[in-house]
Amino acid sequence: MRTEFAVGLPPALHQEMAPLFGAGWLTDPGERLAYAYDNSRRQSLPDAVALPQSREQVLALVRACRRHRVPLVARGRGTNTTGASVPIAGGVVISFERMNRIVEIRPGDRCAIVEPGVLNGDLQTALKAHGLFWPPDPTSAAFSTVGGNLACNAGGPRAVKYGASRDNVLALTAVTGAGELIVCGTATTKGSTGYDLHRLLVGSEGTLALIVEASLRLTPTAPARAALRATYRDVSTAAHAVARLMAQPVTPSMLEFMDGDAVRLARDVGGADLPHEAGALLMIEADGDAQTLPFAIQALKRAASGDGLLSLDDAADEAAREKLWAARKALSPSLRTLAPGKINEDVVVPVSRIPELVDGVQALSRAVALPIVCFGHAGNGNLHVNLLYDPADASQNERAHAAMGHVFELALSLGGTLSGEHGIGLAKRDFMPQAVGAQTLAVMRQLKTVFDPDGILNPGKLLPDE
Amino acid sequence: MRTEFAVGLPPALHQEMAPLFGAGWLTDPGERLAYAYDNSRRQSLPDAVALPQSREQVLALVRACRRHRVPLVARGRGTNTTGASVPIAGGVVISFERMNRIVEIRPGDRCAIVEPGVLNGDLQTALKAHGLFWPPDPTSAAFSTVGGNLACNAGGPRAVKYGASRDNVLALTAVTGAGELIVCGTATTKGSTGYDLHRLLVGSEGTLALIVEASLRLTPTAPARAALRATYRDVSTAAHAVARLMAQPVTPSMLEFMDGDAVRLARDVGGADLPHEAGALLMIEADGDAQTLPFAIQALKRAASGDGLLSLDDAADEAAREKLWAARKALSPSLRTLAPGKINEDVVVPVSRIPELVDGVQALSRAVALPIVCFGHAGNGNLHVNLLYDPADASQNERAHAAMGHVFELALSLGGTLSGEHGIGLAKRDFMPQAVGAQTLAVMRQLKTVFDPDGILNPGKLLPDE
Repeated sequence: MRTEFAVGLPPALHQEMAPLFGAGWLTDPGERLAYAYDNSRRQSLPDAVALPQSREQVLALVRACRRHRVPLVARGRGTNTTGASVPIAGGVVISFERMNRIVEIRPGDRCAIVEPGVLNGDLQTALKAHGLFWPPDPTSAAFSTVGGNLACNAGGPRAVKYGASRDNVLALTAVTGAGELIVCGTATTKGSTGYDLHRLLVGSEGTLALIVEASLRLTPTAPARAALRATYRDVSTAAHAVARLMAQPVTPSMLEFMDGDAVRLARDVGGADLPHEAGALLMIEADGDAQTLPFAIQALKRAASGDGLLSLDDAADEAAREKLWAARKALSPSLRTLAPGKINEDVVVPVSRIPELVDGVQALSRAVALPIVCFGHAGNGNLHVNLLYDPADASQNERAHAAMGHVFELALSLGGTLSGEHGIGLAKRDFMPQAVGAQTLAVMRQLKTVFDPDGILNPGKLLPDE
Repeated sequence: MRTEFAVGLPPALHQEMAPLFGAGWLTDPGERLAYAYDNSRRQSLPDAVALPQSREQVLALVRACRRHRVPLVARGRGTNTTGASVPIAGGVVISFERMNRIVEIRPGDRCAIVEPGVLNGDLQTALKAHGLFWPPDPTSAAFSTVGGNLACNAGGPRAVKYGASRDNVLALTAVTGAGELIVCGTATTKGSTGYDLHRLLVGSEGTLALIVEASLRLTPTAPARAALRATYRDVSTAAHAVARLMAQPVTPSMLEFMDGDAVRLARDVGGADLPHEAGALLMIEADGDAQTLPFAIQALKRAASGDGLLSLDDAADEAAREKLWAARKALSPSLRTLAPGKINEDVVVPVSRIPELVDGVQALSRAVALPIVCFGHAGNGNLHVNLLYDPADASQNERAHAAMGHVFELALSLGGTLSGEHGIGLAKRDFMPQAVGAQTLAVMRQLKTVFDPDGILNPGKLLPDE
């Protein structure tokens, strides 16, 4: 599907939308600039920005954009890392920042009804009063939107126990690229009534439909949590511990991994108190109530113990927990000291293949003579592979980007895939044919056509060019 | 989409398939009869039955059926209740009973790779040795297949804590109605790589594609469990207890409900030891380890207690647990004493609306002068509404079927939907336009066309006639 888009903003579209949106219709270049980029650092100026406050405005905008063949790019707060919200083909950015109401919280149904623009963090604050939370906890949670989280199928550390966005949505109301309002799913925790459209929309990065309301599945907050920090001789023994931790009944509420380079950085640059001989580190958390938590921690300690374990520290209280987490927190700023540029990809592999992934990445690091640091959500096999380089150095730039291709190949060869929680966007779409078979990709393209017959929704994202 | 199907079995199709399938190609009427019905008691003779042993055979059969315009109906073991596996348009039944291998169990990845024809019960037995289980536990588990469970999005009592089929599948390999092999998803517990096709196939009742391999998400088995039985003055106070139970952090591993009629039947006919004044009953279970289980049971007891509670019994061991469950087990045979005919539908509503659902059903029972007994999976708001009547009595027959329509209307008006775990099949497809908006239904029809352009897969099921 290749649509001939209008060049620039058609005056007729502007004339229709300006009165409809009023102050929520931005055409000033300075104002548009704020909607030109995302956290991928890519940038492309939209021709206009719409800030809807109602689903009726969204419907009218989609229909007008379709009539005028104008690209329409959905945006939460632009925290995604893949370029998925950069309007590379121009057109209109639709930012949901003003559709940010929490419509209803129903504790007995473990359900919240929200508009897409509500911040994940604001929702969590509102839920706290009810003893509930919404599981997705990306690093950006304080300033990313629920709609954006859903669009990327965002996860975070808690996903190992509580699932990612797709696992925590009951129903969606959305406007398709055809300009039709659809209601997908029911606000019930079970359902077998026709095709599952709402989970299909999750992770579709604004290429199929625009979410205007979401019914979210909530989880009661455990009253207490406790943390462990385990260091291992090497990645392999740490990965075996991960497999042991995941094969016993007490599922950790977080299970984070750092490879040897990450441990060294956290210690030598970040100042974390970590043994010199540590080749890998696990941060392990459990949650529960005060009475049962000690037993859970005991079970996790047993599973964490074994060949290669160098140290196992636990945190009795929240302050001690913060101290254990200091190593992890010291890591990100430390990375910046290694090189000015960073490519961070979030490949995922079956948990048992983590050692091969890390070994392969370390071999690749030596081959391209660039540091690659791995850490991330071990319980899901979802590692963040950070490739550090100087973008101003042409040779490094080329080697870095070639290396990322090899990282994807490696993850795929281990039975994994391109992304665990960041999505595809622009950054990985050229790798889609390696990850997804030709016939399956053809089905995806046809699904796109069903929802968005003229290809106006976020063109050039997720699916590779034909 | 209305396909003109071939009348009878085209001789050319027979000549192509007979040598390919050998003894796995059945055309004898006596043999075909065994594949003519499902647990809905509907019946329609297929023109041939294919018993594939490989995905290559499935591919060849789909392509041949497409070429010859012959309907193709997937079948596990025919335990479904909706007519979904009855070949109402004739054609070929493809029974996966010989594709029943457990290909691989990977405990560290919490993953099993299976062929679709493996029995749920056989899989659970194989998983037991690894301390793992696959959560879906329909009543039919001992003799229903994983493929059939996936096709219906089957659930069961455990779903309240562990999810239904759709929540417990990582990847699917399937043959579309276009005759293409697609691989959907990855055998990882997280993924954000393109559109989510595998969850779309779950619950699609063989109308989109035929599953030839499934990567299932497994859960470690808790070493111990304990049960509670609570009786309440009336449905409303029991339903409030359900909401309290679901709003606190210890999620029960089962939370089953029986209304007053069900309690009376279990006591008076089934001989269960239950108080006369009980207007509703909850069966509550927790699982965990021996050390923490008492705390979990304590928390559930606290939540179960409140206005209207008449009795609260707990079972210290497995024998006592069986005794508590006797009431539930006595129920089904008791129902048969009320009337020869039973319509059992599995509507689902938000948990907080259970009292209105049961009240509405009781009012309807009085209005149509037929007994209606409700019980089921309260933690998911998924109630089995059993309407008892004499099918030989024309008036009762008519009133019973009209009443089911009102039950669906009621569930929809409460924010629920037609089916929690049985699916749509033939039984509920005419109610789909009430449950799913016209635009959403149009999208579902178009998705069907993408996967199955000639409409050969299970025609006449799930989607209503246009």
